[in-house]
Amino acid sequence: MNSLIVGSIAFDAIETPFGKTDKIIGGAGSYICFSASYFVKPQAIAVVGYDFPQAFIQKLHNKGVDTEGLQISKDEKTFFWSGRYFDNMNQRETLVTELNVMEHFTPIVPESYKNTEYVMLGNLSPVIQRQVLEQMNHKPKFVALDTMNFWMDIMLDELKKTISMVDIIIINDEEAYQLTGERCVPKAARIICAMGPQYVIIKKGEHGAMLFSKDNVFIAPALPLENVVDPTGAGDTFAGAFIGYIAQKDKTDFETMKTAVIMASAMASFTVEKMGTEALENISMSELEKRVSTFKELVSFSF
Amino acid sequence: MNSLIVGSIAFDAIETPFGKTDKIIGGAGSYICFSASYFVKPQAIAVVGYDFPQAFIQKLHNKGVDTEGLQISKDEKTFFWSGRYFDNMNQRETLVTELNVMEHFTPIVPESYKNTEYVMLGNLSPVIQRQVLEQMNHKPKFVALDTMNFWMDIMLDELKKTISMVDIIIINDEEAYQLTGERCVPKAARIICAMGPQYVIIKKGEHGAMLFSKDNVFIAPALPLENVVDPTGAGDTFAGAFIGYIAQKDKTDFETMKTAVIMASAMASFTVEKMGTEALENISMSELEKRVSTFKELVSFSF
Repeated sequence: MNSLIVGSIAFDAIETPFGKTDKIIGGAGSYICFSASYFVKPQAIAVVGYDFPQAFIQKLHNKGVDTEGLQISKDEKTFFWSGRYFDNMNQRETLVTELNVMEHFTPIVPESYKNTEYVMLGNLSPVIQRQVLEQMNHKPKFVALDTMNFWMDIMLDELKKTISMVDIIIINDEEAYQLTGERCVPKAARIICAMGPQYVIIKKGEHGAMLFSKDNVFIAPALPLENVVDPTGAGDTFAGAFIGYIAQKDKTDFETMKTAVIMASAMASFTVEKMGTEALENISMSELEKRVSTFKELVSFSF
Repeated sequence: MNSLIVGSIAFDAIETPFGKTDKIIGGAGSYICFSASYFVKPQAIAVVGYDFPQAFIQKLHNKGVDTEGLQISKDEKTFFWSGRYFDNMNQRETLVTELNVMEHFTPIVPESYKNTEYVMLGNLSPVIQRQVLEQMNHKPKFVALDTMNFWMDIMLDELKKTISMVDIIIINDEEAYQLTGERCVPKAARIICAMGPQYVIIKKGEHGAMLFSKDNVFIAPALPLENVVDPTGAGDTFAGAFIGYIAQKDKTDFETMKTAVIMASAMASFTVEKMGTEALENISMSELEKRVSTFKELVSFSF
C-alpha cells in the first residue's frame, strides 16, 4: 500500500539547550515522509523553492519517497522556520517565519496518487488540506489529520469543515483543549469524535499518547527518555509512522491502530534523540522493533 | 502479614465543583488504613481529640484496623483541614488548618506493633516519621514514605535524613521536582534513589504513575475517568493499597511492586469518584479486580 502525504518541506534552524543547527531540512512533510517510509512508499505533496538542494530530494528518493507531487518554484524561496526551545523543552519560541513558497501554495495531486487509500494531512491550512481530499478520485479508506492552535485561532470554521471529512485526528493535549474548551482529555476526545472523526489520538508529550474511539480507549506510555536533544518533528514523526503502519497492514480496526500508536511513539522517541531529521533517517527495523518491545515491557505486569 | 501505618486521622471539609461536605472523617491515616485493609490488618498510629466520634473508630475496627496505636487526647480537639478545589481539580486552596492535637503529637508504637515488617509513613513531619522507625525492635523489611512540599520548605534536612532510612518514597511529580530541582521525571527518580531509597514512585495524577528502581522502570496508566468528584485522599489511598498489597504478598521484588502500583492506582480511582472516604469504604474485591483488568486492557497491544 502507498500513503499520500501532504506537508511542508522546509528549512529549519533550531536551537535547544543541547545544540544548535544552521539551516537544515525540516518541515512536517519531511518528518512524515521519512517516518512513513519504514512501512510504505510515501507519495509526497509539497512545495519548495529554487534554493532547495537537489541532494535532499535525492535523500527522499533513497528512502523510497515518490516526489511526483513535489512542486519546485522557480521564483520563490523555500519556507523557513527558526525556533528556540527553553530549558524544559516543552515550550519554544519562534524566531523567524519566512513563508516564501508556502504563501500561495496550492497542492496538486498527481494522477498516480489519486486512488491512494491512506492519506496523511500534515499540519497546514485546513483549506489546503481539503484541496487535497477534493482532488482524489474517491473517498480514501482512511484519512488522518494533524493541525495546530494557529489554525484554530484564525480559521476555526474551515478547520471544523476539514475535520468533519477525516477518519482520525492526531493532535496534542493543548490543541485538544483549545479545540473543545475541555481540559479533561477523555471528554475532549468525545467532543472531537462528535465533530466527525471515528478516532482521536491525543499526544501528551512525556506522558505518552491516548487513542480513542467511541467505545474504546488505549493508552501508550512515553519512553522515559533522559536525553531529549531536539523535540522538533516528534509529532510529525509520530503521524508518519502511524499512517505508514496502518497503510502497510491495510487495516483500520482498533487493534491495528493500537499497535500503530506504539510504532509511532517508538519512532518519535528516536527523532528527539538527535537534532532535526538525523536520527529518523537512520533507524534499522531491528532497532525499531527492539524499542517497541521496550514499550511493551514498560507497562506489563502480572495479575 | 500486618502493616504499620502512621498518618493523620482528622476532620476534613471539602468543596469541589461537584460537591461540598460538612466536617467528615479524613486525614492521610484514614485513607491509608481503609485502603490497606483490603489486603492486610493495618496497625494505626495516630492521634485524635476528645471530639472524635467513637462511631468512626468502630468503622476502622469493622475494616479490621488495629487501633491500639490511636491516641485520644482528653484536652484537645481533632486536627481539622478545610479546602476548596478549583475547576480543573488539579489545584486546591486551603481554607482552614487547625492543628489542634497534631501540634504536639508524639507517636507511640505499641509493643504489639514493634516487629511489624511493612511500614507506611504517611505524610507527616519527617521527625515524627523517624520517631516511629526508631521505636521498632529492628529495621522493618520494607518502609515506605510519603511527604509533601511543605516539609521540603521548612525542614529539608530532617526530611533527607528520614528519606535515607526508607526503602521507597511515594510522591507526586511536583514534589519530586522540588526535592531534586529536576523536572525530568526519570532524572528526578535517579537523584532520589541516590538519597537512599531503592525504589521511587512518582505519581502524575491524570497521567498515571511511574515506578523506578536503579535498573528498572514501570509505567502505570491512569484510568481515563470523566467524573472525578473529589481528589482528596487519592494519594493516601494509593499508598495504602501499595503497602497493603506488598505486605500481603510478603515480597519486595520489582514484579510484585509493579502489580502493587496497579492495585494502588485502581484503588485510588475509586476514591476520587465520591466525596471523602465514601467510595473507599465500600469496594468489593471483585470490583477491584475488575478495575485492575481494565488497567491491563488499557495498555495491551499486539506485536
